[in-house]
Amino acid sequence: MGTRTMRAIVKDSPSYGLTLKKVSLPVSLAPDEVLIKLKVVSICGTDLHIYEWNNWAKNRIKPPLIIGHEIAGEVVAIGENVKKVKVGDYVSADSHIPCQVCYQCHTGRMHVCKNTKIIGVDTDGGFAEYVKLPEIVVWKNDPSIPPEFASVQEPFGNAIHTVFAEDVSAKSVLITGMGPIGVMAAMICKAIGSSVVIATEVNPYRIELAKKAGVDYVINPKEEDVHAKIMKITDGRGVDAFLEMAGNKNALYDGLKVLTNGGHAALLGVFSDDVELNVNDLIVFKGIRVYGITGRRMFETWEIGNQLLKNKLVDLSKVITHVFDFEDWEKGMKLMEKAESGKVILRVND
Amino acid sequence: MGTRTMRAIVKDSPSYGLTLKKVSLPVSLAPDEVLIKLKVVSICGTDLHIYEWNNWAKNRIKPPLIIGHEIAGEVVAIGENVKKVKVGDYVSADSHIPCQVCYQCHTGRMHVCKNTKIIGVDTDGGFAEYVKLPEIVVWKNDPSIPPEFASVQEPFGNAIHTVFAEDVSAKSVLITGMGPIGVMAAMICKAIGSSVVIATEVNPYRIELAKKAGVDYVINPKEEDVHAKIMKITDGRGVDAFLEMAGNKNALYDGLKVLTNGGHAALLGVFSDDVELNVNDLIVFKGIRVYGITGRRMFETWEIGNQLLKNKLVDLSKVITHVFDFEDWEKGMKLMEKAESGKVILRVND
Amino acid sequence: MGTRTMRAIVKDSPSYGLTLKKVSLPVSLAPDEVLIKLKVVSICGTDLHIYEWNNWAKNRIKPPLIIGHEIAGEVVAIGENVKKVKVGDYVSADSHIPCQVCYQCHTGRMHVCKNTKIIGVDTDGGFAEYVKLPEIVVWKNDPSIPPEFASVQEPFGNAIHTVFAEDVSAKSVLITGMGPIGVMAAMICKAIGSSVVIATEVNPYRIELAKKAGVDYVINPKEEDVHAKIMKITDGRGVDAFLEMAGNKNALYDGLKVLTNGGHAALLGVFSDDVELNVNDLIVFKGIRVYGITGRRMFETWEIGNQLLKNKLVDLSKVITHVFDFEDWEKGMKLMEKAESGKVILRVND
Amino acid sequence: MGTRTMRAIVKDSPSYGLTLKKVSLPVSLAPDEVLIKLKVVSICGTDLHIYEWNNWAKNRIKPPLIIGHEIAGEVVAIGENVKKVKVGDYVSADSHIPCQVCYQCHTGRMHVCKNTKIIGVDTDGGFAEYVKLPEIVVWKNDPSIPPEFASVQEPFGNAIHTVFAEDVSAKSVLITGMGPIGVMAAMICKAIGSSVVIATEVNPYRIELAKKAGVDYVINPKEEDVHAKIMKITDGRGVDAFLEMAGNKNALYDGLKVLTNGGHAALLGVFSDDVELNVNDLIVFKGIRVYGITGRRMFETWEIGNQLLKNKLVDLSKVITHVFDFEDWEKGMKLMEKAESGKVILRVND
Repeated sequence: MGTRTMRAIVKDSPSYGLTLKKVSLPVSLAPDEVLIKLKVVSICGTDLHIYEWNNWAKNRIKPPLIIGHEIAGEVVAIGENVKKVKVGDYVSADSHIPCQVCYQCHTGRMHVCKNTKIIGVDTDGGFAEYVKLPEIVVWKNDPSIPPEFASVQEPFGNAIHTVFAEDVSAKSVLITGMGPIGVMAAMICKAIGSSVVIATEVNPYRIELAKKAGVDYVINPKEEDVHAKIMKITDGRGVDAFLEMAGNKNALYDGLKVLTNGGHAALLGVFSDDVELNVNDLIVFKGIRVYGITGRRMFETWEIGNQLLKNKLVDLSKVITHVFDFEDWEKGMKLMEKAESGKVILRVND
Repeated sequence: MGTRTMRAIVKDSPSYGLTLKKVSLPVSLAPDEVLIKLKVVSICGTDLHIYEWNNWAKNRIKPPLIIGHEIAGEVVAIGENVKKVKVGDYVSADSHIPCQVCYQCHTGRMHVCKNTKIIGVDTDGGFAEYVKLPEIVVWKNDPSIPPEFASVQEPFGNAIHTVFAEDVSAKSVLITGMGPIGVMAAMICKAIGSSVVIATEVNPYRIELAKKAGVDYVINPKEEDVHAKIMKITDGRGVDAFLEMAGNKNALYDGLKVLTNGGHAALLGVFSDDVELNVNDLIVFKGIRVYGITGRRMFETWEIGNQLLKNKLVDLSKVITHVFDFEDWEKGMKLMEKAESGKVILRVND
Repeated sequence: MGTRTMRAIVKDSPSYGLTLKKVSLPVSLAPDEVLIKLKVVSICGTDLHIYEWNNWAKNRIKPPLIIGHEIAGEVVAIGENVKKVKVGDYVSADSHIPCQVCYQCHTGRMHVCKNTKIIGVDTDGGFAEYVKLPEIVVWKNDPSIPPEFASVQEPFGNAIHTVFAEDVSAKSVLITGMGPIGVMAAMICKAIGSSVVIATEVNPYRIELAKKAGVDYVINPKEEDVHAKIMKITDGRGVDAFLEMAGNKNALYDGLKVLTNGGHAALLGVFSDDVELNVNDLIVFKGIRVYGITGRRMFETWEIGNQLLKNKLVDLSKVITHVFDFEDWEKGMKLMEKAESGKVILRVND
Repeated sequence: MGTRTMRAIVKDSPSYGLTLKKVSLPVSLAPDEVLIKLKVVSICGTDLHIYEWNNWAKNRIKPPLIIGHEIAGEVVAIGENVKKVKVGDYVSADSHIPCQVCYQCHTGRMHVCKNTKIIGVDTDGGFAEYVKLPEIVVWKNDPSIPPEFASVQEPFGNAIHTVFAEDVSAKSVLITGMGPIGVMAAMICKAIGSSVVIATEVNPYRIELAKKAGVDYVINPKEEDVHAKIMKITDGRGVDAFLEMAGNKNALYDGLKVLTNGGHAALLGVFSDDVELNVNDLIVFKGIRVYGITGRRMFETWEIGNQLLKNKLVDLSKVITHVFDFEDWEKGMKLMEKAESGKVILRVND
């Protein structure tokens, strides 16, 4: 590697902002650790929260910390017990480090491990030239997938996990919230033959993004009656599937209300407050199924993503709106603050 | 039949109470209708609401109406197109009359038919000597099942539908609410090998009923810390399955809180008000599945009930606490008002 | 209707051939029967077997019989108890008449009813100007679907039932046999985002049909090594799903052999003889799931078909190769005898 | 440990028999390896095949090899990277060592790993005082489970995996073959509320074992008409579930024949030859699901076993018929050769 320091984006102190600075390279790999030289990383909403130092960040983040968990790069060293990858492999990573020991982990549910640590949140992350990760989270990329797409596989995996909560082929789908994950979910639904994909969104930039991504109907709840419009589109049936990606209580009400009896809802969005809910009318009497979605199934979800990308069934370029050099990371943060972007990519090394 | 009038329990006027009186016999069977001579009926909480004339009843019931929808009897006449049963058959009935035409009905989901009519609520019911029902709801009983159990199959079906939302064999289960359906659910869980069955209940009569029915742990939330107790019982894992049968918001909070990550909840209870819910922590981040449960799958649920009863895997005598003559119907209502009963049976004809 | 006779294609005697002749119109509707004026019908392989009078036909068919069970037409009369359709409705029909009474029928499995009767095989069929059918099999078509496609919904439903045995979105699929149902299955897989769709077929006409329908790889087992080719395409994994539509034992061997461990097979094809099978290596040790597929789920399968057609996710014109006037029915039979056709349509009434 | 040699049962040369002899202790743990001091082991049919040196063994086994893979013992040393267990833990192990890298392994299907190695078959096994195993296969036992039961968890897991292929609660089940795994499967079915459990078996010892284990009906195909008897027991429906544990083609025919339309079969038995099968009538037209079963889901199956044993829902003492000292291992082999035993236990260390 020839150098003992590297550039990294660091949360240095408990206040607004981040610093691009020189830090020591990760050293001394444990038997199950992998050292990755980053090529491309992408910015998550979580990274923005840490940058902005919101309440969640204040309670969770212990500076100093290298942030970032959406990554693509090359393996440059491996611990003696590593089996999944070898030096030179082109990889990305799940951001959730499972303990591999708890009840959830030993019964095929690592994505809801009780002791999960998140990369770039609880441990040093990937907005750096190098990152050291445990083998368990590393994913070997298909060489045909460009690094920009490979990095975005992590939030793409959230979208896949949500869409695949149940089979939505030949079904009508409502997605509330056209942030990047919402748009990716919509593209996935189209790729797997949903009969109609309807979205709700208020932000003009995102409405435009959704339309370009091929959403059949984008409804702005501020301008149209969501219920009436969807009932018209679905011939009075309501939708078969509702994917909540806004973390907004009105979106939740709308979605559950227009969900057909016996349909299903998958909830990925994070709500800012408790939600007052008519459990009888919106869940019990409808006989619906509601799925809480977090993380990605390791690695069933990643395998689906791999197939969708490798076979060009979903084109992530439609959701990647900006690519910056690593040094210009703050331009990306600022765009995301204004909600005037899809996914923002940073190029770390060539 | 030899008579043109019959005794029936009737909601005569929009006020408290019910009247046992002579009314005309049902006449003129449509091609798909079945006339049943009742032997035994049982009282549902809904019947009590109509008796008490609560707000729900005021909005829904249009007197005059014969009430009652938990029944067992004998077919005495059939319409010309009836295929499922013949005169002399020993039958019970689902209480939900599906339209057989809507989207739900033609896709195997009659239990959430958009146009459901409920017997004894929207149409004349079975607290009478005779009742006329459409073939679609009629269920042919196994002759080995006593009429008292046969009548109770309807709420027993609610319990089955809830328990069988997912497989709970070899799983730990929490049931909140030990009303008759809760107790039946507990007995079903024991019959199909749940690893441990825990219940919460505050009413002393029901606590006793639950214990006699074989519940492993009955926790009184007024006296014990539900969360601490369940974490202790489950070695810190929480329960695999949570069946909400209380319609109580604190029960809902407790249940979702002690539910293990990746577990499931099935909600049958009806809540008196909207519920304020931490959707993030209780559903999304837990990666759980929540099932709204209503009615019974027609007739997968009934078939399960048939097998459980016919093979004596569940003993409904443990939940049937009182049997009255038809004339003494009001004694049953009064007991139920005080929540000092399990299922209450009325004998109509011998 | 103005006439008491109608034209129909009839199996008149127990020998090769069929006769287009005048017969009496169906009369006297039972309360649950529907009289349909046919617009378009399509020829099934079963119809060809009856025409050719093969061994199966000799054992099953009792002349005289009007054949045909793939239909589209208009309701012209209904029995007094019919709820699903009214006069003037545009309809098709499932060909399997379930008894509605047996164990299978009352537990949501009408498609495997123990007492099934098949239209045009066990009862007079639809190759006629009018057909009388029980309400239970009638399906109301979306007006946007052309009659040619509506008639083909029956075999299309076989394809859907097979493809939807499990979710094949983002999965690799092998389909053995590119007869019309195989080709439709391939189009469905493409519509719902299978990662790669591979077919095997020896008939040049069908190979061409498959390619035009968008199959990714069509392998001719007479010319190429199926196993080697598929292992190459799938990077040594084998396929995730195997749909057997040839009824050929070598196809079955090939398919099970290239199926990845833990994958699934769905078998629709009918075999001419018993098959000698290495159950250990091909099923047990692979840990696969095998689905026997017959008929269509009533009416979940039809609803999927409706959505695929209404939303133009599948274009059945690619599999409909010939349209004849009713009088020219024998031209269709002759083409099918030579296996030089996809679906063959007959126009009955305009 | 204080000694450098240990006693072990070894396949020394490519011929009939095994040798109890002194061998070197396993040394030099890899970072993910665990050294276990055995307490109790149990004999599998596979061990008998190696003892008898049958054709399978001749082709697979490379002497010298320590055999045995059903074990219970205590962890006495761990590699530096081991997370699941610590020194002193009471453990058993799955016998299938997955590669953790292949397609199957990274998509939650380690039990059908393409590169599986079997302990005591492909690597030195556990019929010894100590065994060295990779962490991935080690299972931490509940302290309440006796070592004899803990050792038997491996074949018990085969039974669980087969029974839980689908939910059989309130369903009728046929199990063909009452070897130890068949008997355990029957006990599991009873524990989870199967409506009726029917078995077929010809061996008088095993018939007796099955009856004592609580099987409802044990049919001897040499003395009774299996089809007629089962149709009588099931009121003409046939069974809902068929578990093949005999590896016998007539058992397979009988089972598929009496399986109700739309039911399911789970195949665990290993057949000595190819099986000639009427795929049409026994699979396709019945619309059934067939599951190939191998190994145990790691570790969902083990967790179910843990719950069944810990909560005393299944009593394995009914299937453990003999317990010998380690030195008397050959007595066990001889009993198994005569099929006059259930599970045979060997005590290694106290």
